[in-house]
Amino acid sequence: MRVSVIGGSTVSSDEYELARRVGECLAQRGHAVVCGGLGGVMEAVCRGARDGRESTASPGAGGHTIGILPGERRAAANEYVDTPIATGLGHARNAVVVMNGDAVIAIDGGGGTLSELGYGHVFDRPIAGLGTHQIESLDGIEHVATPEAAVDYVERA
Amino acid sequence: MRVSVIGGSTVSSDEYELARRVGECLAQRGHAVVCGGLGGVMEAVCRGARDGRESTASPGAGGHTIGILPGERRAAANEYVDTPIATGLGHARNAVVVMNGDAVIAIDGGGGTLSELGYGHVFDRPIAGLGTHQIESLDGIEHVATPEAAVDYVERA
Amino acid sequence: MRVSVIGGSTVSSDEYELARRVGECLAQRGHAVVCGGLGGVMEAVCRGARDGRESTASPGAGGHTIGILPGERRAAANEYVDTPIATGLGHARNAVVVMNGDAVIAIDGGGGTLSELGYGHVFDRPIAGLGTHQIESLDGIEHVATPEAAVDYVERA
Amino acid sequence: MRVSVIGGSTVSSDEYELARRVGECLAQRGHAVVCGGLGGVMEAVCRGARDGRESTASPGAGGHTIGILPGERRAAANEYVDTPIATGLGHARNAVVVMNGDAVIAIDGGGGTLSELGYGHVFDRPIAGLGTHQIESLDGIEHVATPEAAVDYVERA
Repeated sequence: MRVSVIGGSTVSSDEYELARRVGECLAQRGHAVVCGGLGGVMEAVCRGARDGRESTASPGAGGHTIGILPGERRAAANEYVDTPIATGLGHARNAVVVMNGDAVIAIDGGGGTLSELGYGHVFDRPIAGLGTHQIESLDGIEHVATPEAAVDYVERA
Repeated sequence: MRVSVIGGSTVSSDEYELARRVGECLAQRGHAVVCGGLGGVMEAVCRGARDGRESTASPGAGGHTIGILPGERRAAANEYVDTPIATGLGHARNAVVVMNGDAVIAIDGGGGTLSELGYGHVFDRPIAGLGTHQIESLDGIEHVATPEAAVDYVERA
Repeated sequence: MRVSVIGGSTVSSDEYELARRVGECLAQRGHAVVCGGLGGVMEAVCRGARDGRESTASPGAGGHTIGILPGERRAAANEYVDTPIATGLGHARNAVVVMNGDAVIAIDGGGGTLSELGYGHVFDRPIAGLGTHQIESLDGIEHVATPEAAVDYVERA
Repeated sequence: MRVSVIGGSTVSSDEYELARRVGECLAQRGHAVVCGGLGGVMEAVCRGARDGRESTASPGAGGHTIGILPGERRAAANEYVDTPIATGLGHARNAVVVMNGDAVIAIDGGGGTLSELGYGHVFDRPIAGLGTHQIESLDGIEHVATPEAAVDYVERA
């Protein structure tokens, strides 16, 4: 399946490694990754997907990375994106990032990530959270502790 | 100024009245209203703006209501919208609703409202919340108890 | 009704005056104007709408001008726009400009105007052209010689 | 490179075969295809790209097909699309189709195709036309007679 991985463009090295491991795990289990195509969590998860693809004979589309960019230029994508898609929509592209996954994994994140969590609910996607916003008034975000648990959750849901 | 009022399309009668009073108060103090143009909170706030405009000689653009619609047809707007804007963008129009206000007042709400709170943060707008999502990990939502307090807050901020 | 007026952002003084007279005529006959909100034809038509509004007791929404902007800032609108709408969509906002009128008047124009003529056809709007692209393979653009004839045509259609 | 192939969703069998041969030729020469992801020209070019990929050891991304869809569901893509991208933008997605190619090949087409030709000009892409709109007032569409000539042109430009 395709999983949208969302999170901030500025991350600590711990968060970067967490996101990288999410991408690696997704690739190893045969899933494709959709993200916003830029830096931080977006770069880390694409890099991890490439790592996972190279370390295993991942099945099917495993580790294919799609970057849905806010601007008009594909060249703005981080170097680990396989299929960059320019949109020119600015922040409205957040809806498109979420729409193109069958499930969502959220890592950390600020306002942009919050908008994407909202879209995950609107589009009725299962959502796993790793250190992301806690929103008690909204059902449907499963807070987990490890990359593997996040992937387990979205596989089951 | 222009204030984006966000909230769910399905509301209780108490929430409807709360939103109506927000619109009324905004109009009486000379502010225009931006919303998603449909039912629930969106209808109530536009109706309130009309009430406020009729009950006072509201200054300038006071009580002018703009409805930023998800579909391609202006006719989908609720009857209290003065200037309907069709977008055809679906849920991506949530970014446009927030972008067009100088501040945000959030009332109740589900996933769509959450996406708009995220955009409020992205676009650096002051946000007043009336019974809306509590998000501890994100600064900048001022939770208030009355329509007047919500308008007071966005006027000061 | 609402009429979308489309045309280039760089115009000769003759084209500017032509667009200004279109706006004036629309306002005098009680119509609102939708445009892209920036310079050239967009500025001229809004300016004309204001002129028309001031010179007549135009009925209803006559001369109200709506500017659908490509960027995220309302302040980018030309000074004659009454209701600026920021979209942040870049050139994709051309679809929104056309969608929000009941008819289209096209003046001169380059690639952006051509995209809007295409959208006029997609959304099945009557289109009057003043010195704009001649497209033999597409029905439905009525080429006319004067602002009054353009307004006559879209009123009838 | 990536080439956006644009054209109508309803085509004659001759046009379908023309579009299929464009896709085939692009794939054989190592190019990826971007299109609107639905039927008619969009289906034919994706089908041709698959044919070209299977009949040759096409280099690099040769024959990879990306379908930029108007709706929110990836499942709406024709069966020959490798990477469907849902946008939920309706007709505004035409801008995204053109933005994601380095060049444009236009086949036949109605209003939607005309909007895309306009965007091709806006984004300054080389455009080859096969039986598409003739627009004398706009430079930059090279009208050609065969699929091979279309691909030749966009490779040179």
